[in-house]
Amino acid sequence: MASSWGEQLNITLFGESHGPAVGVVVDGVPAGERLDLEAMQDFVARRAPGRTPWSTARTEGDAFTILSGVYQGQTTGTPLCIVIENRDARSQDYDERLKLPRPSHADYTGTVRFDGAADPRGGGHFSGRLTAPLCAAGAICKQMLKRRSVEIFARIAELGGVSDITLDIANPNIEELQTLAAKDLPVLDDGKKEEMVELVERVRLQGDSLGGVVQCIVLGLPAGLGDPIFGGVESRLASLLYGIPAVKGVSFGDGFAACRRRGSENNDPLYISAEDQVRTATNHEGGINGGITNAMPLVFQVGIKPTPSIALPQRSVNLETMLSETITVAGRHDPAIVPRAVVAVEAAAAIAIMDLMLVAFGVQGWGGKSHGRA
Amino acid sequence: MASSWGEQLNITLFGESHGPAVGVVVDGVPAGERLDLEAMQDFVARRAPGRTPWSTARTEGDAFTILSGVYQGQTTGTPLCIVIENRDARSQDYDERLKLPRPSHADYTGTVRFDGAADPRGGGHFSGRLTAPLCAAGAICKQMLKRRSVEIFARIAELGGVSDITLDIANPNIEELQTLAAKDLPVLDDGKKEEMVELVERVRLQGDSLGGVVQCIVLGLPAGLGDPIFGGVESRLASLLYGIPAVKGVSFGDGFAACRRRGSENNDPLYISAEDQVRTATNHEGGINGGITNAMPLVFQVGIKPTPSIALPQRSVNLETMLSETITVAGRHDPAIVPRAVVAVEAAAAIAIMDLMLVAFGVQGWGGKSHGRA
Amino acid sequence: MASSWGEQLNITLFGESHGPAVGVVVDGVPAGERLDLEAMQDFVARRAPGRTPWSTARTEGDAFTILSGVYQGQTTGTPLCIVIENRDARSQDYDERLKLPRPSHADYTGTVRFDGAADPRGGGHFSGRLTAPLCAAGAICKQMLKRRSVEIFARIAELGGVSDITLDIANPNIEELQTLAAKDLPVLDDGKKEEMVELVERVRLQGDSLGGVVQCIVLGLPAGLGDPIFGGVESRLASLLYGIPAVKGVSFGDGFAACRRRGSENNDPLYISAEDQVRTATNHEGGINGGITNAMPLVFQVGIKPTPSIALPQRSVNLETMLSETITVAGRHDPAIVPRAVVAVEAAAAIAIMDLMLVAFGVQGWGGKSHGRA
Amino acid sequence: MASSWGEQLNITLFGESHGPAVGVVVDGVPAGERLDLEAMQDFVARRAPGRTPWSTARTEGDAFTILSGVYQGQTTGTPLCIVIENRDARSQDYDERLKLPRPSHADYTGTVRFDGAADPRGGGHFSGRLTAPLCAAGAICKQMLKRRSVEIFARIAELGGVSDITLDIANPNIEELQTLAAKDLPVLDDGKKEEMVELVERVRLQGDSLGGVVQCIVLGLPAGLGDPIFGGVESRLASLLYGIPAVKGVSFGDGFAACRRRGSENNDPLYISAEDQVRTATNHEGGINGGITNAMPLVFQVGIKPTPSIALPQRSVNLETMLSETITVAGRHDPAIVPRAVVAVEAAAAIAIMDLMLVAFGVQGWGGKSHGRA
Repeated sequence: MASSWGEQLNITLFGESHGPAVGVVVDGVPAGERLDLEAMQDFVARRAPGRTPWSTARTEGDAFTILSGVYQGQTTGTPLCIVIENRDARSQDYDERLKLPRPSHADYTGTVRFDGAADPRGGGHFSGRLTAPLCAAGAICKQMLKRRSVEIFARIAELGGVSDITLDIANPNIEELQTLAAKDLPVLDDGKKEEMVELVERVRLQGDSLGGVVQCIVLGLPAGLGDPIFGGVESRLASLLYGIPAVKGVSFGDGFAACRRRGSENNDPLYISAEDQVRTATNHEGGINGGITNAMPLVFQVGIKPTPSIALPQRSVNLETMLSETITVAGRHDPAIVPRAVVAVEAAAAIAIMDLMLVAFGVQGWGGKSHGRA
Repeated sequence: MASSWGEQLNITLFGESHGPAVGVVVDGVPAGERLDLEAMQDFVARRAPGRTPWSTARTEGDAFTILSGVYQGQTTGTPLCIVIENRDARSQDYDERLKLPRPSHADYTGTVRFDGAADPRGGGHFSGRLTAPLCAAGAICKQMLKRRSVEIFARIAELGGVSDITLDIANPNIEELQTLAAKDLPVLDDGKKEEMVELVERVRLQGDSLGGVVQCIVLGLPAGLGDPIFGGVESRLASLLYGIPAVKGVSFGDGFAACRRRGSENNDPLYISAEDQVRTATNHEGGINGGITNAMPLVFQVGIKPTPSIALPQRSVNLETMLSETITVAGRHDPAIVPRAVVAVEAAAAIAIMDLMLVAFGVQGWGGKSHGRA
Repeated sequence: MASSWGEQLNITLFGESHGPAVGVVVDGVPAGERLDLEAMQDFVARRAPGRTPWSTARTEGDAFTILSGVYQGQTTGTPLCIVIENRDARSQDYDERLKLPRPSHADYTGTVRFDGAADPRGGGHFSGRLTAPLCAAGAICKQMLKRRSVEIFARIAELGGVSDITLDIANPNIEELQTLAAKDLPVLDDGKKEEMVELVERVRLQGDSLGGVVQCIVLGLPAGLGDPIFGGVESRLASLLYGIPAVKGVSFGDGFAACRRRGSENNDPLYISAEDQVRTATNHEGGINGGITNAMPLVFQVGIKPTPSIALPQRSVNLETMLSETITVAGRHDPAIVPRAVVAVEAAAAIAIMDLMLVAFGVQGWGGKSHGRA
Repeated sequence: MASSWGEQLNITLFGESHGPAVGVVVDGVPAGERLDLEAMQDFVARRAPGRTPWSTARTEGDAFTILSGVYQGQTTGTPLCIVIENRDARSQDYDERLKLPRPSHADYTGTVRFDGAADPRGGGHFSGRLTAPLCAAGAICKQMLKRRSVEIFARIAELGGVSDITLDIANPNIEELQTLAAKDLPVLDDGKKEEMVELVERVRLQGDSLGGVVQCIVLGLPAGLGDPIFGGVESRLASLLYGIPAVKGVSFGDGFAACRRRGSENNDPLYISAEDQVRTATNHEGGINGGITNAMPLVFQVGIKPTPSIALPQRSVNLETMLSETITVAGRHDPAIVPRAVVAVEAAAAIAIMDLMLVAFGVQGWGGKSHGRA
C-alpha cells in the first residue's frame, strides 16, 4: 500500500496537513525495548518549524501521543500507533486551491489522482507535515540502533549552491559528526553556515526559495546487510527516501561523480585493518557492494529541490475556466526546507537500517526480545 | 522477497551467472495479450554482449524459452516463466574467487551475506547476467505499453565524462528518440558517439574501464499515475533501478542540478495546451509532482559506475590467510557496461510503468482482458 | 506484517485491551465515498458487549473517532485512521496473569512469543477487543458494497449444539436474511432462539461457556472474483477470518459434509437462468469454483470455540515456581461469544470482498473515484 | 500476487496442466543446506498419479530439474527454480471445454476470470498438476525441518465417509505416524484401508467419485511460533492450504466438534511435563492458542471434496448457444484424489512451518547459514 513501507519493520503514515491529526503505525518493533520519550521528543522537535536560524520565533515541537504497543515504558512487540494533533487547522478558502493549482506542488496531480476528492488543505496527505510522524517512527529506530552501536548522522552538504566542506567518508571524524544534531544549521564548517544563512535571507527577501543536498552517514553497520537484486540497501533506502516530499535525487557513495571516473580510480582496494577486519582503503562505493554492506561507513546523498512555495507571482491555470491565471501563494513560507529535511532523512535512514537489520538477523539475532521462554 | 519486485505486475528473477540457467517469473500480465516473440528477441539481443562498437565479434542474443502463461500466442493471465540457458558455464577455479575478492565487486559482501555458500562463479546471483531475464520481462511490458501509446526511450547521456547533447525534456523530438534503439551506441549526437568510442578504446588499451549516465524518457503517460508517499513514481522506479548492478545514483527531472536553483527558476509554470490539456511550460520536475505523473514526459537519470572488472593489478586480501595480495582479474572485460545498461534501464522502466498502470487502472481499466463474460 | 491484512484494501489493527485505545488504519479506500457515520456506529454497536439477550444491561456501543482520510464527509482516497478509546482500563494485578496463564487463552503463548514483554492486561493485543476496530473497518466496506448491490448477512447456525434451521443456500430468501441484523440473537428460527437462550442461561449458571457456528452469505457478487492458487476467495477469506479470536474452523459451501458425498451428489449442475445467466441448480460449492466466484451466493461457515474464560476452577501452572496451581478466572464472562462473533464475521467478509473487488476491477472499474480529470 | 505465497520463505507456482512445464520458484531458502535429491524425488513421487491401490499401473514419479539456487549440492541462499516437464500434452479439442464447462470445475469461472483467454487444456493453471511443484518445494522444506527435529505427518482420516481410527493428538505414537509415508493408502488402521479400497472400487465402477478428510500432525515445534491477529498459525496455514484444489474446509485441533462443546470440556489444562516443560493435558486446541504454537502437536484437518471429474452424464450449458446440454467427461478419472492430497497437505504444512520458523527466528536463529564471516 502506498502509505506503508517496510518488510520486518513496517510503518504506515496517515493524516492530512489540516485534518484532525497526522500519525504513524509502526509494526515489527521488537518487544522489550525501553523507549526514551524525551529523546524522541527532542528528535521530532528538530524537524518542527521554527528551528532554523532564519526563523523569527521558536515554536514548540510537535507533541505526540502513543496509543498502543507500549506497556510500562517498554515496547510490547505489537504495533505502536503514534498520533500528532494538528493545531493550526485553518479555515481559509481551500476550494480556491482546487481551482488554481500551485506550480510544482501536488495540487494538480493530487486532484487528478483522487478525481477531485483529495483533501486540498495545505497539500493534504501530500504535505511535508507527514514527515512529522516519519520522524517519530525514526526516533524509535534511532534509539534502538544506537543501543547496538549503530549511529546515524546527516548534514547539509549543499544549500543554494553553497557547499559545506568535504567529509572523509572512508574515515569520518565521529566527534565532529556528533556535533551536528545540536546545531541550528547542521553543517561541519561554521563559516559556510554564515554564508548559507546570508544567502537564505537574501533569497527570502526576494520572495524566492532554495534547495540543497543532504548527506547521511551511518556508522557501526556490520558487513552482510541487505539482499541481492531488489533487496539491496540502495533499493530499500531509495524507495523510502523518495517518500519525503521535494526529494529529486538519491545517490550512494560518490554518486554521479563516480560515473565520470575510471574503474582504477573508483574501485575501493581491500586491506586488513588494525582490528584484523576486511576494510577498504577508500569508500567511493559508500559502504555497499552488490547491494550488501561491507562494514565501511554507509554514505548517501539526497537532493532536495527548492521549496515550490514562493511569494513571487507565477503562471497557473484555472481548472474551472481552463484559462491561464497568475497565482501568488499567500502566507509565510520557509525559504529553504533543507534543514528540516535533514531530520527526515535521518529518520528514514534509521527506519530502513532497522528493517534491514531485522530482515538479516531476525529479532533475536539482532539482540531483541522474541520467542523466549515464559 | 529480495529477488521479486512489483505490486500488480510482479517479477521474480532467478539464476546464477554460471549455473544451468537464468530466468524470470512474471505474474500479473493481463490475459489475452498477443506476444511478439521476434520483438522480444530483438530487445533482449540489444542487451546481450557483443553489440557495442568496440566488440570484436557479434554474438547471438540470448535465446529464451517461455514455459508457461502463454496459449496460442497469447498471454493467459497466469504467470509466465521465461528461461535463458547459460551456455558458457566455465570450469575455472572459482574457489580462488572466494579467497581473493575483486575490489568493488560483490565477492566479499556476497561471501559474508551467504556465509560462504553463495555460488561464486562469475558473481553468481549478483551477476549482471540477471539483467537478461529482466530485459525479457521488460520486453513484454514494452510491447503491451506501446500498444497503448506509451513509449520508452533511453540513451547514453554521458560516457566517461563525455556528454551527449542536451535534450529538450519538455518537448522532446520523438522521431529523434525513435532512432536510438537501432544504434550500436545510443546517443543523439553522432559526433559525440565517435568521441566516446575513441575514449573507450583508449581506456580499454590501458586495462581500465569507464562509467556513465543513462537518461530515460517515457512519453504518452496519463496524468495521475502513482500514489502518495511511498507509492510515488520515484520510489517505485528507484527501488527497481537500484536492482541493476553498478547503479549508484538515480535522479528525476533536472535531478541534483535542480537543488542548486531557486524556486522561481525550478518551478514549472502551468498552461493550457493547444489540445486543451493542462501542461507545464518547462519540465524541471521530470513529469512528476508529489510522486504523481502530470502527463509531461517522465524523465530520469541513472548513474552507472565504471565496470569494476579491470585488467590492472589491484589490492585485495586473501580471506584465508588474512594477508594483503595483489589481484589481477583475468579474462576479457567490457570496458564500459553503459550501453548494455541502457537496455536494462528501458526494461526496468517498462516494468515499473506497467505496474503503476495496473495499480492505477486495474487490468480492465487499462484496456486488458479480465473478468469478462464467458 | 502480522497485524495487517489486504492487497488493495489494507487494514492494520493496533491497540491492547487495556491500553489507551484500539484502532485501525484502512488504506486503499476509494476516494469520494460518502460515509454514513450513523450506520457505521450502529454496526460497531452490534458487536459491543451487552447486546445479547442474556445481558443484564445495555451498554453504549464503542464510540470511534476518524483522524484522517475523510474531508467534507467523503473519503479522500488516503488512509483512514479510526480510534476507539478504552474506557475501562482497570488497575488489577495483571502481573498475576503473567505468572498463572488461563487455559486455552493466549496468556502462555503470548508470554513466550514476546519473551515476557507483552501487555498482559485483558489479553493485550490478542484480545477480542481488537474486533471492535475490525468492525469499524468492515462497516465502511459494507456500506460501499451495499451501494453496489453486494449484501452480506451472517447468522448463528449453531449455538452450543442447537442448530438454527437449514438455509437454502442456492436460493436464499433475502427478506428473511435482512431481518437478522436487528435481532438480539441473529437466527432465522425464533423458536430455536428461545432454545439457545435457555441453554446459555443454564450453562452460565454452571460457570461454563458455549461455542457455535456462524454462517455467512454474500449476495450480489459477480462471477470472476478471486485469483488462481493462493489468490482464491477461500484463501483470502480464511486468512482474514482466522484473525478473529476463537475461530477454529472455516469451511465453504457444504464444507466438511461435502467430503462425505459422492461427486454426482456434490457437483452443482449448470443451467441458464430466467435472466439468461449461467447459474448452478444447487450450491454445494458455496459460490466458488477453483477459488473464483461463479455468481451464486457465496456461503461459508466459521466455527467458534466455547469462550475459554469460565468461572469454574481449572488446572494451570505457575510460571515462576513451575508448580501446578488451580486458577479461577475472576470477573463476569460472556458465556457465549458467538453472537458478537457474527458481527466480526460480517465485517471480515466485507473487508475481504472489498479487497477482492478492488484487485479484480481496480478503483475505477469497481465504480469508485480515481485517476479522473482535474 | 495470486500464485505466490509466503513471507520469508516464498514460493511462486507457474505452469499449466498441458503447457510445456509446471514449476516453482522458492525464494528465501537459507544458504548452505545440503539437498537430498533422492528424498525429494521420493516425496514428489508419492503425489504422482498411479500410486493408489486402485491404480492399474505404477507410473514414474514426476522428474524435476533445479535450474538455480544450488551449488555443489548445497543451497546458495538465492532463489531455486524447479521445473517439471509435462510429458502428456494432448491434442484433443479443448475448444469444446471452453464451450461446455464441467460442473464444479473451474472451467466456467476460469473463462470468466480471464475473459476467455485462459489455457483451457486440463484445467490450465487451475489444475491439480500444480501441486507437483508445490510438493517439490515442500520436499525441500521437509528435509530442512527434519534436520531440526520437526516432523510432519499426514493421513487419510476419512474417505467417502469411512473413518480411520481416532488418533490421540495430545500424545501421538510417533512410530505409528512414521509408517504412513510408505503406505499406498496412508491410514493407521489397515482394516479401514481395506474398507476404503472396496468402497472406492465400487464407486469407480459406478462412474462416480469420493471425497474425504486429511489430518496433518506436526511434531517438534517450539512454543511461540506465529504472530498475533492475521499472522497466526491458522491464518498462515489456511491461506496456503486453500491453494490446493478441492479443499473446502480447514479446521484446527478438534475443529468444528469443539464448537459443540462447553468451555470446561474444551479448555486444555496446563501442567508441567516430566521434562519440566509447560504442556497441556489435552490438545483440543491443536497446539495453537491465540494463533501462537504452544509446543503441543500442531494438528489440523483438511476437507477434500469428491473429485468433480466423474464418468456419469451431467447437466451443463453451452456457452455459445446458451442452451442446456448434457456433458460426459471423457477419459479415466481418479475416483478419489484424497491419497494424493495427503502429500500436497504435507508439502503445504512444511512450507508454512518453514516460513513461520524463519519469520520467528531469522535464518541464523533458526540454525541456517546467513550473514556469517567471510
